[in-house]
Amino acid sequence: MASMMFTDCSSSTTSRLILSNRRSGSILLRQCVGQLRLRTTPSGRGFSLSIRSSSSPSPATLVDGKAVAKTIRDEITVEVSRMNESIGVVPGLAVILVGDRKDSATYVRNKKKACESVGIKSIEVRLPEDSSEEDVLKSVSGFNDDPSVHGILVQLPLPSHMDEQNILNAVSIEKDVDGFHPLNIGRLAMRGREPLFVPCTPKGCIELLHRYNFEIKGKRAVVIGRSNIVGMPAALLLQREDATVTIIHSRTKNPEEITRQADIIISAVGQPNMVRGSWIKPGAIIIDVGINPVDDPNAPRGYRLVGDVCYEEACTVASAITPVPGGVGPMTIAMLLSNTLTSAKRIHNFQ
Amino acid sequence: MASMMFTDCSSSTTSRLILSNRRSGSILLRQCVGQLRLRTTPSGRGFSLSIRSSSSPSPATLVDGKAVAKTIRDEITVEVSRMNESIGVVPGLAVILVGDRKDSATYVRNKKKACESVGIKSIEVRLPEDSSEEDVLKSVSGFNDDPSVHGILVQLPLPSHMDEQNILNAVSIEKDVDGFHPLNIGRLAMRGREPLFVPCTPKGCIELLHRYNFEIKGKRAVVIGRSNIVGMPAALLLQREDATVTIIHSRTKNPEEITRQADIIISAVGQPNMVRGSWIKPGAIIIDVGINPVDDPNAPRGYRLVGDVCYEEACTVASAITPVPGGVGPMTIAMLLSNTLTSAKRIHNFQ
Repeated sequence: MASMMFTDCSSSTTSRLILSNRRSGSILLRQCVGQLRLRTTPSGRGFSLSIRSSSSPSPATLVDGKAVAKTIRDEITVEVSRMNESIGVVPGLAVILVGDRKDSATYVRNKKKACESVGIKSIEVRLPEDSSEEDVLKSVSGFNDDPSVHGILVQLPLPSHMDEQNILNAVSIEKDVDGFHPLNIGRLAMRGREPLFVPCTPKGCIELLHRYNFEIKGKRAVVIGRSNIVGMPAALLLQREDATVTIIHSRTKNPEEITRQADIIISAVGQPNMVRGSWIKPGAIIIDVGINPVDDPNAPRGYRLVGDVCYEEACTVASAITPVPGGVGPMTIAMLLSNTLTSAKRIHNFQ
Repeated sequence: MASMMFTDCSSSTTSRLILSNRRSGSILLRQCVGQLRLRTTPSGRGFSLSIRSSSSPSPATLVDGKAVAKTIRDEITVEVSRMNESIGVVPGLAVILVGDRKDSATYVRNKKKACESVGIKSIEVRLPEDSSEEDVLKSVSGFNDDPSVHGILVQLPLPSHMDEQNILNAVSIEKDVDGFHPLNIGRLAMRGREPLFVPCTPKGCIELLHRYNFEIKGKRAVVIGRSNIVGMPAALLLQREDATVTIIHSRTKNPEEITRQADIIISAVGQPNMVRGSWIKPGAIIIDVGINPVDDPNAPRGYRLVGDVCYEEACTVASAITPVPGGVGPMTIAMLLSNTLTSAKRIHNFQ
């Protein structure tokens, strides 16, 4: 699988159609989505989506992470406000950024904005690239002891002269809103145990399935990719929800054949358009975590973002799919806010 | 799957043959094993087994846990002695037994015997059934602080008035030779992290595969059962060895179909003879963790032990299989000794 690299679904008819359309000036990245209707279900927590497509007979539901994340942020706003009014506590998230990486700075800025939008206090510490590990550990330790901070996030990657594992391990488990501490992962894996926090991206994937009322119990699920931050915890979460889970990775000999057995596919492998239409069982639900830039001279920035799944082909086979962007991405930040709120509630014993 | 309960492979021809044989006085529990030849491979660490069967054309290798466990105990004996001679330290295992359960007393006695056989010092504490949780915690704490103890084992189950999780969590992670601490499980799940100890039974399963030089990398593996002590950690271990792993459990809709795709099957579900010949891909390797008593009026004690896998049927399809008893069982205790030795070496920084 490691040797596979698709930058476009170039061999498919669908794709060719799209390419020819793009040449004429209209980019149909969401070809299967003609007209979108979003309704809130009676419970107020679920989404019901119907799609009428003019260009495809596919009934594929667009799993709209952006809309779901907005709903979740609204719910968090209400809770943050209720907490503040009831006990005078505002949840606080501390973010430690080391060095000058532009992408990291953007991520941190987005997290800060998201905090502000729901009323969570965000505290940012910027340390220079040449800081010592000691400096970072001192920052972590300060936030561990600070009662106004309920979540601590060390923006990765750290400069190469630092021991990442050492620094992450220093974050108090009660404030580890990223959920990456091995103790959390262990509890996630074990039946009858509860993690304090679930890692944000996989939590966002499962939350999407829940909000759309897609059943997980008893379903065949395939997770593509086994990273510590997405694939592995996503598999553990699906397992907790009684799916029958298979993890596919770079050593898997027949990923296509196995993926085709799945009712639910979560792909988090970082290979643009790797999962083709032929990999997908008709009616499967697809959560695409990949956000891969591919060259596109017609795009304003010279590139566009695509998922691990060939979206156009998948739309004609799957029953539901997350778009890229606008699928899992917005959910990750929403889950970070949710974890920070959960932490503040737990620390202050607020129901 | 939970509703399935087979006490015998009664529908199969093979089984009927066996039953008729049993009536005439000879029990052919290991029908596929006619004549057994065990050779040590040139490295001295592997086993090579050839089987000539008079009653079956099957080439199935008997994966002889008893013999492998013996080899491992011999290796441990050498290491314990070398450690004692070099630095004057004898590894010590403390076992805490609460109450009067006969089966628990038997397990503890067997562990004690096994320790003695390799030169590991065993310390046993017996507490009455009506002890308080405090009493047990005090024992654990004493062993945590005792430098002559390198492994602590609390025999389960504990009396129902005690909080098992609370007591297990009190065992120092450096002495948790059972490997059940969530921090250990988390490290087992995470790439790039190393657990201090791997739980004994799943470690024994993988060790059997290694000792017989069965390749794991790239193979399809199915683990049947998802318990915290066997199924789940076995799946994590197979995953670490680059197998493509699926966990089957009580909510899995088509366990037979999925199991039939596996090159390696580890079954730990506690259902006698559940895995039939039809579940097995020709040439698969089977590690059967189940040890299930089934009624047998012809057996001296009125029952006999069978695995989760219908042995007689499996022998005609699989390429290798562990017998029950004599397969995984002896490996569990060998791995406990191995973990205790590892712990003593680590604590005393002895290579």
